[in-house]
Amino acid sequence: MENNYPELTVSRSIIKIDDGCVRHKEDLIVRETTLTVYINLTEVATLVCSPRDQKYLAVGFLCAEGLLKKREDIISVELNPKQGAVYVKSRSAFSIADRLTVKRRVTPSAGGSGTTVSAGGISLPPPIGSHLQVSVETALNLANQLEKRSRLFQRTGGVHNAALAKGEEILIFQEDIGRHNTLDKIHGQCFLEGISRDDKMIIYSGRISTEIVLKVARMGVPVLISRSAPTDRALQLAEKLNITVLGFVRGKRLTIYTGQERVILP
Amino acid sequence: MENNYPELTVSRSIIKIDDGCVRHKEDLIVRETTLTVYINLTEVATLVCSPRDQKYLAVGFLCAEGLLKKREDIISVELNPKQGAVYVKSRSAFSIADRLTVKRRVTPSAGGSGTTVSAGGISLPPPIGSHLQVSVETALNLANQLEKRSRLFQRTGGVHNAALAKGEEILIFQEDIGRHNTLDKIHGQCFLEGISRDDKMIIYSGRISTEIVLKVARMGVPVLISRSAPTDRALQLAEKLNITVLGFVRGKRLTIYTGQERVILP
Repeated sequence: MENNYPELTVSRSIIKIDDGCVRHKEDLIVRETTLTVYINLTEVATLVCSPRDQKYLAVGFLCAEGLLKKREDIISVELNPKQGAVYVKSRSAFSIADRLTVKRRVTPSAGGSGTTVSAGGISLPPPIGSHLQVSVETALNLANQLEKRSRLFQRTGGVHNAALAKGEEILIFQEDIGRHNTLDKIHGQCFLEGISRDDKMIIYSGRISTEIVLKVARMGVPVLISRSAPTDRALQLAEKLNITVLGFVRGKRLTIYTGQERVILP
Repeated sequence: MENNYPELTVSRSIIKIDDGCVRHKEDLIVRETTLTVYINLTEVATLVCSPRDQKYLAVGFLCAEGLLKKREDIISVELNPKQGAVYVKSRSAFSIADRLTVKRRVTPSAGGSGTTVSAGGISLPPPIGSHLQVSVETALNLANQLEKRSRLFQRTGGVHNAALAKGEEILIFQEDIGRHNTLDKIHGQCFLEGISRDDKMIIYSGRISTEIVLKVARMGVPVLISRSAPTDRALQLAEKLNITVLGFVRGKRLTIYTGQERVILP
């Protein structure tokens, strides 16, 4: 059986049953691996992920956690595939306190048990000032493009996907078994390659939780387009950070949840 | 607008756009909250969850992490809604070492970067010996029941769901914004109420990762039925722990991935 994704999937014998008919066959199964992220030899977290673009994942994760701020801080990024580890060397100091904050965040925690997500020792990024505008047509078009490009998902049903877009064009596309990883990989690539974000949009397949909004905010992207639903606290955070959230973007439908001023209505 | 889920959802004004038609209306948004789990006053983790059955969630999470073993160990379980915290008092000692293992696990980590998931200091539960049998008809029927009962999901698109079933009957049903929480809540209820698991099945809406298989194994349930896809490593673990995994169970179709001996073919 042909495998177009040797990196992301493996072939395995399974038994398919369809309306009483039993067939033994080979099928593609999505691969799951772990990546342990180190910064200056301190272990920060172990992430479950798809085995691709792991340097981007590690760097993006550290950016999303607020542990990497400037490109110039990075001395080196080394992947050790055998160990399933990425070692990031940074000029900026890295304290145990930071690390514990991260440990809390990756539980994943919305950041506290109070009504705001700024509790729990998590510092929020500043609100996003970008005056980017997006038309309803463009949002629907981008969600449609994401759907078309997620072949691995359609094939194995096992991954989420996300994209970075400018106008109607998708610039970066990522697929991963971990919802958050798709965004971290995009963040990592933008950070390492110096790609601007305040003029771009994120299109995302998964549910919008506070952690997703926080990742988009830390990325500095003003518009988040999802095929799925947001949570109440994610929307509170999106308002606070001035992020436009469009959900259930499917076919000819979408819902505007926050940041309507960036949306050009039909 | 009527809200049948005052506990799990809130009403919010949104703008719906459908084929060019713009409507301002009230819609139900799924609630997101955090729960910090303490055992003997040691903070173990902060979980993002739906605000229901949080005592079950805390206890089930601790069971799944291997930190609670016997019902008799529990002295008390107290929920503090204001703090968003559950305090579990246990007779058994709880060391920092355990805690660090947990911190690793909840990242979520499959438990190491090697080829087995028993790495990373995680002790695997024993293989499941149960000789439970399930017919293809029953599996399809149960998946169908889960689908029908997940009204909140259909309504808000924001939650996963899971159920514990015996034969064709669903005994426990849970909905939560966190994939893992649905299983932890079932585990917690079984643990506190002394419900046997080796004669039952889990039906689950989400993707089957190693962490899901590990939770089912720690629950002692021999059969896992999912509407979604498994990962390669999850299946390796399922074989090791002798768990039957049925995936893509939808309509009249399903795929048998592991533990075929428990499945009665048509």
